[in-house]
Amino acid sequence: MFRVPYQELFDTLFQVLLKTGFEQERATLSARLFTDATCDGVYSHGVNRFQQYVRMIHNGTIDIRAQPELVASHGSLERWDGRLGPGNLNAHHCMERAIAIARDSGIGCVALAKTNHWMRGGSYGWQAAEAGAIGICWTNTMSNLPPWGASGPRLGNNPLVIAVPRPGGHVVLDMAMSQFSYGTLASYRRSGKPLPVEGGYDAAGRLTRDAAAIEASQRPLPIGYWKGSGLSLVLDMMGAMLSGGWATHQIRSDTFKETGISQVFIALDLSSLDRDGFAARISDEIVKHLKSMPDAEPGVRYPGENTLRTRKENLEQGIPVEPAIWRGVQAL
Amino acid sequence: MFRVPYQELFDTLFQVLLKTGFEQERATLSARLFTDATCDGVYSHGVNRFQQYVRMIHNGTIDIRAQPELVASHGSLERWDGRLGPGNLNAHHCMERAIAIARDSGIGCVALAKTNHWMRGGSYGWQAAEAGAIGICWTNTMSNLPPWGASGPRLGNNPLVIAVPRPGGHVVLDMAMSQFSYGTLASYRRSGKPLPVEGGYDAAGRLTRDAAAIEASQRPLPIGYWKGSGLSLVLDMMGAMLSGGWATHQIRSDTFKETGISQVFIALDLSSLDRDGFAARISDEIVKHLKSMPDAEPGVRYPGENTLRTRKENLEQGIPVEPAIWRGVQAL
Repeated sequence: MFRVPYQELFDTLFQVLLKTGFEQERATLSARLFTDATCDGVYSHGVNRFQQYVRMIHNGTIDIRAQPELVASHGSLERWDGRLGPGNLNAHHCMERAIAIARDSGIGCVALAKTNHWMRGGSYGWQAAEAGAIGICWTNTMSNLPPWGASGPRLGNNPLVIAVPRPGGHVVLDMAMSQFSYGTLASYRRSGKPLPVEGGYDAAGRLTRDAAAIEASQRPLPIGYWKGSGLSLVLDMMGAMLSGGWATHQIRSDTFKETGISQVFIALDLSSLDRDGFAARISDEIVKHLKSMPDAEPGVRYPGENTLRTRKENLEQGIPVEPAIWRGVQAL
Repeated sequence: MFRVPYQELFDTLFQVLLKTGFEQERATLSARLFTDATCDGVYSHGVNRFQQYVRMIHNGTIDIRAQPELVASHGSLERWDGRLGPGNLNAHHCMERAIAIARDSGIGCVALAKTNHWMRGGSYGWQAAEAGAIGICWTNTMSNLPPWGASGPRLGNNPLVIAVPRPGGHVVLDMAMSQFSYGTLASYRRSGKPLPVEGGYDAAGRLTRDAAAIEASQRPLPIGYWKGSGLSLVLDMMGAMLSGGWATHQIRSDTFKETGISQVFIALDLSSLDRDGFAARISDEIVKHLKSMPDAEPGVRYPGENTLRTRKENLEQGIPVEPAIWRGVQAL
């Protein structure tokens, strides 16, 4: 592991994207989203995912020329077709559009069909919060999670992002509906350590902290068991219904991984209701209360707090990149 | 336990509400909401909670004359003041308003400050789904849940409701952010059975399935550990910021329990975008897929499925009411 300065990582990704045929402006945005995710510590959906992104461009899964298109609208609700363009650019566009609607109308909702993986979901939460808006977005995925009461995957892990702007540091929740991602399970397996809590079932159907056993059974747990299972289902239903696109069970999980997915972007803009700055004050106060009670353990953190710490460190010291990944990216 | 016909339960509650001074129309709606919750099997927030509701009217916590008032609006986003009126009537009013905005503008959001406990949160999800709209709503509560990494309660369990209309039976998720409610913990303690999964910590700080130990430590688990903890926090933040009302840490948990809480109601109306009935078809197809795969265990259910079964049974056979509760209600 060595550290690459932000600008160098950005330039490297940008040049690769230009070479694949991206227009300058879109290459800039895509490279920035990948670099920001990496800088924020979400390596799995930052530089570590970049080679796969380029592969999906080369094999035609991602159409870099496709721009999202407005299909239908009713007031503050819009349906867009992602036309199988780059998932990160489509998602960024749709959150931007939701924020614009929210500026005019308080709340805006943009549902996006036929898109590709958005990489780090949290990016679109940060985008809203940095624009001073509350952002809520989610995506469906291919089937990768057994519903509560079943052993085979037939739900997606359908990440949900909720971002709340706050003067003292935005609060950005970015969570999949599985307790641990397959990436996290793999890293626990490699470390030989047990999971901190039960993460799924072993082959015999017993709850376990053994990451390798869960990888083998393909039975990770939904968060909160039946609760996350239900939440995953309704996120998929809303995604498909609002966008007019595919539901999890229609998304192929074989050769063309997770293409044609459905997403929803909601933004809320309080600025015209909240002229006295109440929202900013209360958001700071809530976080302060969470962290400052007399019995507060050092472990109490708000969603996004680690991100801000990691971002600062990586901006100062350079962004950690695995040597093999870096060589692979440079060879693209 | 004996069974009371729907109409008899409704009439009994209605008469009590008239006696407390409710106007006829508001007594009707409140009695209907209590009766429906009970009929749907949510006894804890149906008839079992009715005596406490009346007590809170008598002690002045709930002001039955107070009508919710529009405080500010911007397009499809509105702020209402609940004026400490009956929480179920306020919530019903605000979801109705959100649905009306959604009819005009696709999506509507109503944030409600200074209200009282909404009783069964799912009621407002069913309300939206029966109107053909997607409904999303949540409430904050007094502090009753330790955040991940802390031992003292300083989050609410902040129930979240998501309702999706479906021709074959609406899908209505109604879930608190704690894995088990205190009511559920008490019933496991009384039964002497262990919880089906770990539900919190014992006094020594170990995860346990022993309901009594969790009641004693007051350390129930958030769903998905750190994930539900983060979700609970952002729901509280959004509730207070959007409504201009109180956050969980400002809500008194002593004499006047949970008064002055904040809620958010969002409705989405697809009808003008979705003229070909796609949404109805895909919602049925998703549920059918969930339940009909070859390896489907009988245990795979969608949120709301049990409700429909219970409702049917209770409408046919009468609604189960504990004799002591029934005597108490009749004596009001």
